[in-house]
Order: sequence, then structure tokens, then C-alpha cells
Amino acid sequence: MTTDTGTDAGTDTTSEHNEDLVAGAVVPPPPTVEEQQQIDRLYGDFDSEHMVPLWTQIGELMPLTPKPTAVPHVWQWKTLLPLAERAGGLIPVGRGGERRAIALANPGLGGQPYATPTLWAAIQYLGGHEVAPEHRHSQNAFRFVVEGEGVWTVVDGDPVAMRRGDFLLTPGWRFHGHHNETDHPMAWIDGLDIPFVHYTDTTFFEFGSDRVTDESTPDISRSEQLWCHPGLRPVSHLQDTVSSPIGAYRWEHTDRALDDQLALEKAGYPATVELGHAAVRYVNPTTGGDVMPTIRAEFHRLEHEVVTRSRREAGSSVYQVFEGTGTFVLDGTEHTVEKGDMVVVPSWTPFSIAADAGLDLFRFGDHPIIERLSLNRIQEDDA
Amino acid sequence: MTTDTGTDAGTDTTSEHNEDLVAGAVVPPPPTVEEQQQIDRLYGDFDSEHMVPLWTQIGELMPLTPKPTAVPHVWQWKTLLPLAERAGGLIPVGRGGERRAIALANPGLGGQPYATPTLWAAIQYLGGHEVAPEHRHSQNAFRFVVEGEGVWTVVDGDPVAMRRGDFLLTPGWRFHGHHNETDHPMAWIDGLDIPFVHYTDTTFFEFGSDRVTDESTPDISRSEQLWCHPGLRPVSHLQDTVSSPIGAYRWEHTDRALDDQLALEKAGYPATVELGHAAVRYVNPTTGGDVMPTIRAEFHRLEHEVVTRSRREAGSSVYQVFEGTGTFVLDGTEHTVEKGDMVVVPSWTPFSIAADAGLDLFRFGDHPIIERLSLNRIQEDDA
Amino acid sequence: MTTDTGTDAGTDTTSEHNEDLVAGAVVPPPPTVEEQQQIDRLYGDFDSEHMVPLWTQIGELMPLTPKPTAVPHVWQWKTLLPLAERAGGLIPVGRGGERRAIALANPGLGGQPYATPTLWAAIQYLGGHEVAPEHRHSQNAFRFVVEGEGVWTVVDGDPVAMRRGDFLLTPGWRFHGHHNETDHPMAWIDGLDIPFVHYTDTTFFEFGSDRVTDESTPDISRSEQLWCHPGLRPVSHLQDTVSSPIGAYRWEHTDRALDDQLALEKAGYPATVELGHAAVRYVNPTTGGDVMPTIRAEFHRLEHEVVTRSRREAGSSVYQVFEGTGTFVLDGTEHTVEKGDMVVVPSWTPFSIAADAGLDLFRFGDHPIIERLSLNRIQEDDA
Amino acid sequence: MTTDTGTDAGTDTTSEHNEDLVAGAVVPPPPTVEEQQQIDRLYGDFDSEHMVPLWTQIGELMPLTPKPTAVPHVWQWKTLLPLAERAGGLIPVGRGGERRAIALANPGLGGQPYATPTLWAAIQYLGGHEVAPEHRHSQNAFRFVVEGEGVWTVVDGDPVAMRRGDFLLTPGWRFHGHHNETDHPMAWIDGLDIPFVHYTDTTFFEFGSDRVTDESTPDISRSEQLWCHPGLRPVSHLQDTVSSPIGAYRWEHTDRALDDQLALEKAGYPATVELGHAAVRYVNPTTGGDVMPTIRAEFHRLEHEVVTRSRREAGSSVYQVFEGTGTFVLDGTEHTVEKGDMVVVPSWTPFSIAADAGLDLFRFGDHPIIERLSLNRIQEDDA
Repeated sequence: MTTDTGTDAGTDTTSEHNEDLVAGAVVPPPPTVEEQQQIDRLYGDFDSEHMVPLWTQIGELMPLTPKPTAVPHVWQWKTLLPLAERAGGLIPVGRGGERRAIALANPGLGGQPYATPTLWAAIQYLGGHEVAPEHRHSQNAFRFVVEGEGVWTVVDGDPVAMRRGDFLLTPGWRFHGHHNETDHPMAWIDGLDIPFVHYTDTTFFEFGSDRVTDESTPDISRSEQLWCHPGLRPVSHLQDTVSSPIGAYRWEHTDRALDDQLALEKAGYPATVELGHAAVRYVNPTTGGDVMPTIRAEFHRLEHEVVTRSRREAGSSVYQVFEGTGTFVLDGTEHTVEKGDMVVVPSWTPFSIAADAGLDLFRFGDHPIIERLSLNRIQEDDA
Repeated sequence: MTTDTGTDAGTDTTSEHNEDLVAGAVVPPPPTVEEQQQIDRLYGDFDSEHMVPLWTQIGELMPLTPKPTAVPHVWQWKTLLPLAERAGGLIPVGRGGERRAIALANPGLGGQPYATPTLWAAIQYLGGHEVAPEHRHSQNAFRFVVEGEGVWTVVDGDPVAMRRGDFLLTPGWRFHGHHNETDHPMAWIDGLDIPFVHYTDTTFFEFGSDRVTDESTPDISRSEQLWCHPGLRPVSHLQDTVSSPIGAYRWEHTDRALDDQLALEKAGYPATVELGHAAVRYVNPTTGGDVMPTIRAEFHRLEHEVVTRSRREAGSSVYQVFEGTGTFVLDGTEHTVEKGDMVVVPSWTPFSIAADAGLDLFRFGDHPIIERLSLNRIQEDDA
Repeated sequence: MTTDTGTDAGTDTTSEHNEDLVAGAVVPPPPTVEEQQQIDRLYGDFDSEHMVPLWTQIGELMPLTPKPTAVPHVWQWKTLLPLAERAGGLIPVGRGGERRAIALANPGLGGQPYATPTLWAAIQYLGGHEVAPEHRHSQNAFRFVVEGEGVWTVVDGDPVAMRRGDFLLTPGWRFHGHHNETDHPMAWIDGLDIPFVHYTDTTFFEFGSDRVTDESTPDISRSEQLWCHPGLRPVSHLQDTVSSPIGAYRWEHTDRALDDQLALEKAGYPATVELGHAAVRYVNPTTGGDVMPTIRAEFHRLEHEVVTRSRREAGSSVYQVFEGTGTFVLDGTEHTVEKGDMVVVPSWTPFSIAADAGLDLFRFGDHPIIERLSLNRIQEDDA
Repeated sequence: MTTDTGTDAGTDTTSEHNEDLVAGAVVPPPPTVEEQQQIDRLYGDFDSEHMVPLWTQIGELMPLTPKPTAVPHVWQWKTLLPLAERAGGLIPVGRGGERRAIALANPGLGGQPYATPTLWAAIQYLGGHEVAPEHRHSQNAFRFVVEGEGVWTVVDGDPVAMRRGDFLLTPGWRFHGHHNETDHPMAWIDGLDIPFVHYTDTTFFEFGSDRVTDESTPDISRSEQLWCHPGLRPVSHLQDTVSSPIGAYRWEHTDRALDDQLALEKAGYPATVELGHAAVRYVNPTTGGDVMPTIRAEFHRLEHEVVTRSRREAGSSVYQVFEGTGTFVLDGTEHTVEKGDMVVVPSWTPFSIAADAGLDLFRFGDHPIIERLSLNRIQEDDA
């Protein structure tokens, strides 16, 4: 957000401007004492009329490159999970709060429950036989499962089993609830565009059934029966949809796709994004584009000791380690990570990722927002 | 093409126009003898100046509804295959003719090798250990396999195994050759937009290697390894392509997709195009649209004794029976069909299909041409 | 069309293929007498079963580059107009023939009333106080006025004045009729996609009022009041339309746009297509694309002694000289042209245009068809 | 942004949730004293681990309908202009602050210089013979002139005269500077997406020349010579552009377009958005869509005593009165307005506008952002 970008950022940017001034611009003379008094009165009048001069703000508002207030940060799964479990014992799920989800609050965002200015990331915890009642909202949502199973999420009446490695969608305005059919609890991560929808004042919310509307527990959802046949589209569904109609992207497909890319690379064919780095994007089969209008989701696999090339992107991302160990270098600082850990990469933060024996990473970001509005930029830094 | 529109069509249409005239329009008086002589002289002068008056043509050129010169027709597999086999013994494959393919010549099109004005359909026959040399052309091509296996088609260096039920693509300007790795011959059908590309004078052709450029015989192609994971797109290939990058749409996926639709229908969910009639369209995963710019391809499954609703469409189609027996009613005439039979449905011809025990149908048509130019119309006739 | 593909074309292409053979391909041995008898029997059986072998056709069907049967040709206005006038005296307008239009019949197309395989071009002649009754059809139509005025074309009830230099649209399925409000006749050219719509069997036609539905004679049409304000779109009409909603593109705008381009060029800014050659495309303001799905229309202005660079394009065009004199070089042959002359440029025909004192040219072509189906190619030849 | 949405909003929304609870949901029992202690400890631990529970936030984060923190507000021109004039005497233009622009700070947004969460609106003041140096930035900008003239804005080297009623574009990353060629000052309004670009951390900024790069003062810009001919596109510029290539949308065109709509309405044809209410949208001629990816701009004309139907929209707007007087009813509160006054309408605020003798309104909003991300909703309230 833009609440307080802090003196540092401010000075920093101004200095950038000044450096530039040195490069030939005319620096105006300082005001006299009397002028300063008039200026002070003017600023007071601006204030009372709800006006703010650009020239006192431009350094912070329009820096030469993005100066996010969100900061790079890592949340460890071994911290997140126990806290979620404690909440499980103390906080009932239901109408009071709708969901037992605990959000990652970026330390740079002043306590707001936002992983980045645009993205919400949370751990959700559902106890054995608990039910999260149905509701719908304009916010786009997904779930990703790093471990466990036994919960079905019911999306517009279609029960979708949740299992390790699955990526599950609940696009905007679709009713959804969850129910745990087992005796043991299950935890997963939620990703939403809550901050963006709140920021743009476009939130709509509606309550649904207190129970899920279909308590059956099929192995795969109807959406998969209809849509998960490669290169095939049901002739009964030729209308493109804003978001993907696929309720669950199953781990076995993701895993195989990544293995195939690496096999092709070894055979000498272009398939990976860089040497030893395979990646798939989850897409809407009706368009070939991102799964939802505001959220991009991908899965990345780094082989033994692969190090990605350092890059920075306009737009923010959140990673979760699915398997393996490694190191994120974020703006020059190293962070070692292991299974379940979540990493925030703010906009324009230089970052690279290094695998130890191997590293499987789920990633989501706000890039569809950035790209659809033509604000996207990428810079690859020299090794 | 459409030169011989035939007196019938002509008269027929004019009568339509006349009927309309009766409905209130002013009919001009017939010319006097002298006027007629002047008119004859005028028409002679038109002719020598390469001019043709609209008023002598409009009935045939602009009828009230399409009057195709192409006619509905059925070719029986039990006729096609033996003739292809005889050609196999007499006509070598190679540079002389590039391919041992025999085209279906619509009886209404004056002997041209066209199934419809826009579409080419042929049976291709490749003997044991024969090789069809590589070439490329602006024409879009596909193959569909109704029986047999053992041939690999190599598309821009990617070897693609051909097996019963597979739908295989060679879009415009991709090098392709075929080689039979077995001792037995194999036959399949080719579908191309040869008539359309010829008609628009946009044909480009280039010779390639006399052998295929990769003689390996993998079970699946590299294109499938990269693209055939449902809802997943390689991050290394984010540029959309005019035609589908998938070299082979495998039968097991098509078969399962159709079964799933029928299972969903039985469970009470919308999945089929009409009761007992499942259908999938082969699509380009980068866009969700048709596999190639000029050709649509689909597979239809009719259950026991299902009869499709009679309809007519602007645009022409060719069907091949993949399995089962049934009846095509084309413009009121019944045609019984069995495995391998090929059926042409010209534009705006009323048709319906009836299954006996069950009927699996491969279909292709020129509808992308019609739709991209906003000439599409569909009319469903009352039962 | 592809009816008379001619031996020349055939041989010609085959020879091309053979040249290539020399370059290393294996030429099969000639058949024995007995084999030849079997081959003859086989060909006889193909014929009776409505089958045609590719290998006897490929040279003509799939040449290395387009071999149009349409030929370059010039029709002179001083020939077209008098013949139209004679028709005016002998052939009444009305329900019999709907329109008094005489089509250009390309000498290569076997007497069909087609300027090119896809395009219809005609001179239409309407006597003083005559009325051409209303009708509508799926064919897209436009008119261009090289001289005269006094006729209003009424498009879906909107009266559109026709004046020299105006380009007027009647897109598919809009009712239209014409009425001449003066004592003197008027002639103009019509352009339609009649051949293409006929070829694809997508023609639909409907009769309307015998009189025009609005006999008022406003200076500009309602469509212009709504749509002809640069960069401004009515908020009441935000739905994009397949064809342009503009009924008339007025000469004063076209003329000024061309002058402005040449002025910018002289001032040193990029504005023209090549030195001394200004050009505008008529577009659909709701999309910025071509005015109609099947027809592109442009206006070109060549300054004193400018010669355009020789080029060839996949797709066919028709030019009409609006003003000035010059020379068309079509496939190496020079054709001098003057006001009103019409020139056909078939697909892939090398052509360049040379102005004498100056040359204003109206142009239309089938390039939207070619481009929407990804068959477009352009080749610029070296000077 | 929307950091502190205030207790009211919070409670308010929660109550909404509770009302709903009453409608049948199970309300969980209150925690025991000991549970409450455990909960407090848990919340403390959440806090230290940068985690925030959804259930304490959902009422404020996900209300049933948008609850903007931005408020409806009116700034009077008679207040804005004198303050800008005082700044003119005290604050030099130049590298220090780049521009002498004073932003409207929405009273609901905690002192940030934002008219709405996404939009920047400011009054810019340039004294006689002053020059605002060139720079460029990723932010999209426009200017609208309510009075005066004499300044040229130079956009990528193209000098664009600024006059009353003109709407002028400087899309993202185009160099631009301003220079006043007269002895008298000039003021206008700037509109930018500064808040949105800052929020998404996608700001890029670059300094240019300290003088404008072209000091000529043509009556119209080169962009207009190239692009402002209705329905005509230069063949030299067929590549679509993200933003409109038009530098200035001139008042005479806007004025005439609105008059024409009202004339058509009086003649009985559909042309206005509602009775007596004409409106045009400024568009990108290469696409027919909005002028820039993040900003929509329109001009509305209300006739004598016309009252618009009350509506609410997802997305925020800013109006400036160009001419006339009237009343804005914003969320039930009446605000009388006159020439130059600026009115902010936050997202989902019910509003209607009433003209006295007549009312001309310039409007801009963030609707392209909302629509491209499929978050758009509109609700028309009953009269």
C-alpha cells in the first residue's frame, strides 16, 4: 500500500532525483524567510481544502524504479502449522468467521493481513469432521495442498477432493464450502486477491448453505471429467469462461509434465525455462491463459544444485516449497527453505533460487493484473 | 468449384424469386422484338468486353438459401480400401507424386478431387517399409486412423506414432514425411484444405528430405510430452500459435472424454450435446480454439438407438464412421453406414444421424473459415 | 475458381517438380505395358467410385507458388460507362434483376462474372428518378463513386447520399435500396464478396420493400452523425460490430488524410507507406480493423512520377483510378490507365504502379479472408 | 489506501454478517475465561510471527458490498484556482518538483494525495513563459482544459496545443514537457493512475530534456494529422497500440458529436444513453477501446432539467463541470456544482446528476482496470 513508505524510501528517491539534478538541471534558489512563511500559509490552506502539492510527494510517489513497502519475507511451515493447530482447538469454524484461515502479514505492510499489496496468502486448518459453510464472493481464490488429504471442497455443487500436490480453484462468485470426512485435521494454503479487490472497492459477498450442498466424496470432480482430457473440449461447452472451469489440477499431471520437460531437455530439445529448471503454468483450457483474471499460478522444479538466473519482475509473487531444500536469494539476502515454507517476493526485488538435492516449488503472483494493464516489465540481472 | 450450378438450381432459384414477385412486386413488360435485338447486341458487346450483367445471374448467384453443387454422398470403406491396396501394388510412392493418396471426388463437383468445395479428403496407403518423403506446404493437413498402426509421421523432426483412433496434425508449412516400420501396409485418411487454398491462390510448396529426418519410433511424440498434460502449459512456450502444437490426439483420451460425458449425463449433469450424444472438439491448447485456422475436427459418440436432431449448417463436413453401424439421413435420403465409411454433408443440407447399437464418428469441417468471416448460420429443424 | 486449370499450369508446375527431382530424388522406373494396363483399369475404377489419385493432380493442385487462373486485366471506364448507359435504356430495374449492375468477368475465369476468384466488381447504373428496390443478403457490399451524385442509398432505413469520392457500405444482411432524386442518371462501382459467399455456399437473400423505406435526402447519414467524430465513440453503442457502422466515408476526409500524410512526410516524419505514396485504410471504428469481414478497402495517392516498389501478395485486389493518369506494371506487362479505369491484380502477381503527374487510386481486396485464416504472405521484389 | 477502514465500517459489516446469522446459522458459544486467555496468547503469537486471523478481519475485508474509505466530495474551482495561482508565485517549476500540480486529496484517504484509491486528479498551473521540463514515467496521464490556452505540451517530440475543451493524452513512458508561449498563466487538470501504479509497485520514471525538445507551436499536432480522420487509418501504422496515438481530442469534435446525438434523439433515433443525456467515450482508434489501459475518459451533456437515473458502479470516477450548473446527488446528499468544480464518485456510491439550464461534464474513471479483471458490476436504482 502507499500509507507510509518511510523516510528512507523518501530520502532515497529524492537523492536519486538529486543525483540527476547534478547532471545538468537548474536548481532553484532557496526561498527567503518571508517566502517561506507564505509557503507555509499556502500549505496550510492546501491542507484545509484537501489538496496536496505534487512537488512534496513526487520522490516517494514516482521513484525511478519501484520501491515496494512490502518486504521479502519467509514464513516457516514448522511455525505456521503448529499455530494453525492451536487455532483449531480454540476457534470454531462457522458463521462467526466463515473460515479458520490465518493470513501471512507482510512485515512491511503495517500489520495488514496481506502477503503483498495485491495478494492474500493464508494457512487454512480444518479439523476432523468439521465443515466450513458455503459462501461466495467476488474475490478469486485457490487452494494448494502441501500435505494431507481427506477434505472435499464443494464448488457450485461439485465436490472436489483435496490431496497433496493438487491445485484447486474457486474463482469469483462461485459458492464453495469445505468438509473434512476424516478423523484427522487437514491444513492447506489459500491464495486470494482479497487485497486487490478490497483496494479497488469491488468486493461482493453472499452467504450460502451452512452445510455443503453435496456431501458425496468422489475421487475426481465433475469438472475434471468434463475438462481434463488433453486438447479436447466438450462441444457442449464452447463458450469461453473468464476463469478456468477446472476445479482441480492434480499432482500426477503436474509431476509428469515437469519430468517430461526435463527428459526432453536431456534429449536436446527446448522444453525448460533454463537448464535444469522445468516449469508449468496452470491455465484456463477455454483460452490458454491464466486460470483467473487476477492470479497466475505455476509450478517449478529445479534439479540438483540448479541456480536460477537472478531477475526482477514488476508484480509480486508468493512461493511455497513443495519438496526439497534450497536457498532463496532475495535482494541479496540468503534464506534457506524447506518443505512448506512460504516466501514473498515483492515487485522488482532481485531474486534467484538455488536447489540443494532438488527443489519443487509452487508459485502464485499478481502478474495477470500487471500484464492486462500493460505495466509489466522484467529485467534479468547478469550472473 | 461452383461453375456448373446446373439448370435445376438456376430455375429453382428463379422460381423462388418469381414466387416472391407474385407477392406484390412490379413485373416489367416483356421487350418488343426490336428491343430484344438491341438487348442481344448489348449482350454480345458485354461478352466481348468481359462483362456480365447481374440480372441474368442473380437467381443462381444469390439464391434465397445456399444451393450447393456439391451433393451428399457416401463412400464405403470396403470399396476405398481395396482400391488403395491395388494402387499400393502399382504406384510407387516418391517424388513423382509425393504421396499415395486417393481423394474423394464429390459427384456434384464435376470430377474435381474435392469432397466439398473447401475440403480435401483422401485415403492414404503406405506399404511395409515404404517412406513418403518430406515436404511442406501452406495447406493445413491432418490424418485420422480408422485401423492399423506401424507408421510414424515425422512433423518438423518430431516422430509421431500413428495408431487406431488417433487424430494427427501437420499444420501449414511444417515439414512432414511418413515411414512404415513394419512388413504390413497401413491405410488412414488425410484431411486438408487443398481446395480452399487452391481457390484463394495461396498455395506454397517446398520439398524436403527424401528420407524422414528422424527415424526413431517413440511411443509418443515430443509434442505430446510438452503439451498433453491437462490444464498445464509449459512456461517455455507462452507464445500462442496459429495452429495446435499437439502432433497427436490419442484415442485413449478421446474415448475416456466421451465416456465421462455420458457418465455425467446419466448422473444428471449437463455434459453432452443432446441426450445420448457425446462430443469433443479437438482444440489448440494455446487458445482453446480450433486446431487449425481452416479446419474443425470433432469426435461424436451416439449411444444405442440415439437419433440426432435434424439440423443444417452453413459450411460443409465430412464424417468417417470409426465404430458401429447406423444411418445418415441427408436431405431426406437414408444412407446406412458401417466402420470406415465416409459421408459428405454439404452446406445447408438438412441431416440427422441414427445409431444402431452405438455409433462412433470422426468429423471434420470448414467451419472455422465460415465463422472467422461471420458467415455462420445454423438451423435446427423440428422433429 | 479451379475449373479451367489448364495444361500450361499443369505442365509448368510438374516441370518445377521435376527440376527438383533432378536435385537428387529417386525417379521411379516407367511401368511395363502390363502394369500400364492394370493402372488404366485402376484409374477407371477410381473414376466410377468418385475417387481421384493425388499423384496425377499434385502439380496443378499444389504448385510451388500460387498459379492463379484469374489473369491481370484492365477495364477502361470509357468502355464500361457507355455500355452501362445502353443497358439503362433497355433493361428496367426492379424485381426481375434487382439491380442494373454489370460485372467485370476476369478473362481467366471461364466467363464467370467474377473479377477475381473471391471478388465481384461491377458498374451500377441508375437512371433519373429510378428506384432499386430494397433487399438484403449475406454478401458484404460497398459502393465507390468515381463521378456524379444525386442518388441516395438507404441502408436499414438510413438514407446515405452518394457523391464523388465517397466510399459507402452495405455490410451483410442489412436491407438496402437506391433511389435517384435527379433527372440525370448516375453510375458507380459495386464491390462484393459474391464469388466467395457463393463458393462457400453461405448465401442468404431476402426481399424487402419495393420502394426505399425512407425517401428523405439528408446531406449526411445518421450513421455519420453517430460515428464520424475522430476518436469519439457513442456511449450508447459500446458493443463492437462485425462490420463498420459507418454508412459513408466522405471524400473530404479521405482527401485531407492523404494530404496530411504527404505534408508530414515532407516535414520529415513517418506517415506514408513509401516516399511520395500516401495511403489510408477504411476501418471499422469499433475495432480499428477492416470495414467488413471479407473485404479490405483503401485509398492510395501517388505524387508526381512516383513509382511504387514491385511486390506480390497472397490475395487478390481490384483498383479503380479516381484521378490522374499512370501505368500499372502487372507481371511485367505495362498498362496505362486513366480516370475510372479498373485494374485486377490476381494473387501473387508481381505489380508496381507509376504515376504521371499524380495518381489517386481506390483499392479493394480479399485480404481479410487471407489474413484471418493465416494464409497471408507478401514478397517485395528488388528494384 | 484502505488500511484503516475504521470501526464503523467494521462493526457495520459484522452486523450485516450477524443479521445473516440470525437467518439460521449456528452461533458458536462464547469462550470460557481460560479459553479466552489461550486465545489471547495465540493472537500474541500470531502477531509476533506476522500472521493475522481471517475471522477478526472478514467483516471489514469482505463486506457484502463495497465499503469505500474514499468519500464523495466536491472541490470548487473558485477555491482550486486561487490556490494554484498563489503556488504559481511561490513555487518555481523545475527539477525539484518537476511540475506545479496540486492534487485533490480525498478526505477519506487519510491525507494521501489521491482523489480515489486508483486515481490522481490535480490542477496544474504554468505561468507565462514557464517551461515544465520533459520526463517520462510508466504512469498514464491526460490533461483536460476547462479554460484558457497558450500552452503546448510536447509528447515524444510532437507539440500539442492546449485549448479549452481539449482532452490531451500522455500515455505511459512517453516523454512530455509543457511550455507556456504567452505572458499569462494557464491552468488545467491532470488525471493519472499514480495511486494504482504506486499501489502495484510498477512505477518507472526517467528524466528528459530540461527544455521541451520541439518549441514550435502548430495549431494541431502531427498525431492529429495522422489519426483524426474519421474511419481512416494510415496504412503506414497498422500495428495496434496499447494506448491511443491521438495527442489531442479537440473540443469542436466533442461538441459536435454531442449535438448530433441529441439531434438524432429528437428525430426519433437511438443515439443517447438516456433521454436528454448525450455521451461520448474517448477511444483508441487502433482498437476502438479505452484511450489508455487504466483510465476511461468520457464527456457527458445533459439538456435543460434532465436528471440522470440513479446508479452505482464498481469502480471510481471523477467529474469536472465544463459548462453550466446543476446538482450531484451522491449517496443521498445534494451538491450544487458550477463551471470547473470537481466531483469524486467512489465505487458503488449511488449517484445521479441533475442539470439546471444544461450541464456539460468531463468524466474519467478507473473502469478499464475493473473490466479487464472482470470485477465490473453496475446497478441501476429505481427512480
